[in-house]
Amino acid sequence: MKKFVNDPTQFVPEMLQGIMAANPGKLTYVPDYNLIMRADMPRDDKVSILQGSGSGHEPAHVMIVGKGMLDGACPGDVFAGPPSDFVIESTKLLNSEKGVLHIINNYTGDRMAFDMGRELAEAEGIRVGTIVVNDDVAVQDSTHTTGRRGVAGNFFVIKAVGAASERGADLDELVALGNRVNDVTRTMGIALTSCTPPARGTPIFEIGDDEMEVGVGIHGEPGRRRDKIKTANEIAEELVEAVVVDLPYESGDEVALMINGLGGTPISELYLVFGIAHAMLTDRGINVTRSYVGEYCTSLEMAGLSLTLCKLDDELNMLFDDPADVAMRIF
Amino acid sequence: MKKFVNDPTQFVPEMLQGIMAANPGKLTYVPDYNLIMRADMPRDDKVSILQGSGSGHEPAHVMIVGKGMLDGACPGDVFAGPPSDFVIESTKLLNSEKGVLHIINNYTGDRMAFDMGRELAEAEGIRVGTIVVNDDVAVQDSTHTTGRRGVAGNFFVIKAVGAASERGADLDELVALGNRVNDVTRTMGIALTSCTPPARGTPIFEIGDDEMEVGVGIHGEPGRRRDKIKTANEIAEELVEAVVVDLPYESGDEVALMINGLGGTPISELYLVFGIAHAMLTDRGINVTRSYVGEYCTSLEMAGLSLTLCKLDDELNMLFDDPADVAMRIF
Repeated sequence: MKKFVNDPTQFVPEMLQGIMAANPGKLTYVPDYNLIMRADMPRDDKVSILQGSGSGHEPAHVMIVGKGMLDGACPGDVFAGPPSDFVIESTKLLNSEKGVLHIINNYTGDRMAFDMGRELAEAEGIRVGTIVVNDDVAVQDSTHTTGRRGVAGNFFVIKAVGAASERGADLDELVALGNRVNDVTRTMGIALTSCTPPARGTPIFEIGDDEMEVGVGIHGEPGRRRDKIKTANEIAEELVEAVVVDLPYESGDEVALMINGLGGTPISELYLVFGIAHAMLTDRGINVTRSYVGEYCTSLEMAGLSLTLCKLDDELNMLFDDPADVAMRIF
Repeated sequence: MKKFVNDPTQFVPEMLQGIMAANPGKLTYVPDYNLIMRADMPRDDKVSILQGSGSGHEPAHVMIVGKGMLDGACPGDVFAGPPSDFVIESTKLLNSEKGVLHIINNYTGDRMAFDMGRELAEAEGIRVGTIVVNDDVAVQDSTHTTGRRGVAGNFFVIKAVGAASERGADLDELVALGNRVNDVTRTMGIALTSCTPPARGTPIFEIGDDEMEVGVGIHGEPGRRRDKIKTANEIAEELVEAVVVDLPYESGDEVALMINGLGGTPISELYLVFGIAHAMLTDRGINVTRSYVGEYCTSLEMAGLSLTLCKLDDELNMLFDDPADVAMRIF
């Protein structure tokens, strides 16, 4: 196993310690619940926003806790949803008079943990709202899902509700907004390699040297088919087609285009595919006015990428323009 | 070869097209010289700052062109310095009354191209200043170098002179500042895997499943030794020790700590190592007050990382706090 790791069972806590060390004074770490939260939250004049999910998808979500994005993230172990006590205790720690918003990627384990967490929090008088993200068009049901999976599109949901919450939106408004963003956001991914969870020590699936998995999930779940590797043009065309027809996105639409790396693909290749997809969308009359290229929602060191479109309007443009201050930084 | 690529010989131009597509109105692309430059430069009230280097190290340097960082970057092909005509023509296009600053990583090919570029530019009456970055402590001379190699530490040089140039510093001041930053910046890297340039199609070196290259160069050049993979703690200790003793950094010093991914290592592992290195420096009385974790100067999809320290003072803190607006963005 080629990883920078000590005891594999301590991989997540040691990563969280690193995030804390890089953000003194801005973030608080609660080891008992793998919780990273804003040091300046909760506040009774703002809804608190909490994400769970498994680890191994970083920067999602523990590295995007900060003003304008998440107020807290309480991940489970690598590729495992958080236990329900992480959810309930994190919800209590983030409790605000305006309520707590749970953003859940649609996986069965995550949903069960958050359903129980919500029930117990409400029993203690905490107001809880829920948004379920399911942007992946690849497959209808999957290994870990009833219905579609939630993947990189959750960044658009989080950015919108994060900004709106800073502007003072209440819990019901945020739930409606988040669902509205999810409804206009679609993603599909493709993998060239597998990945190896630290505590498991072996790849989660086998794939040939000349193969790719079309429509892969972010835990290596099967997608639409296994195929021979194609050119970047052919891959971009397949991803664009799968995503565009699904909403559908139509000529005249204004969209955000995200090319998200799955962990092991260099950013040079992400920009190469971005340029191709941008030209293909332009040819269809779809106007890309916001561009996101990099790693957002990954699958450890998997080589691969996903393409996300989010249909824009005046309100979303305003919210996406708002500042965000999160752990990940470049100069 | 598991890459998102069309014609491998067009890898760099297609990547540059993607960067342009993501940054309309902000950047200009001059295909003849692989030049990405700020659309609002040159200006006669600001020194223009140009980097060259090979491609394959992205985001260095074509993705950090923007206000407060580089004014232009004219990379060669993957792992190849720019031809000298790229340098001379890019220098002409960036010509300002205040002059043009060349920032060169110390590789023989890059230095020859920039030496010739400077000579020809000066013959046309352009004022040129030069900074050579050589922050890598691993080896004294190397495959492609007389003297030490320039690696991720160039980000601190670029950030400092980029900010100072926006504040109005003249060419001589910037050369002195850049040399001063280089003098207090040290890096060492480690690789767990090799990488494959697209047009070559095969890995640039072989490495066993249980091996690591200590002190690797960003083109896969050999470092200090080949060894069996060690724990994250042992690796961090070796990198910290190699870098700290070299300046040396001493108890009471205030430093920036950068953990830079080489392309194929997940950001979770980078933060894990960051946390360990941060604690080791704290134990030595060295105070980490600025934190940088992510991919800055990569080697395609190589799994590995480097550790950089930059010794801070009031002027550098002020310059590092200044805003920068570059192609890479997160929310």
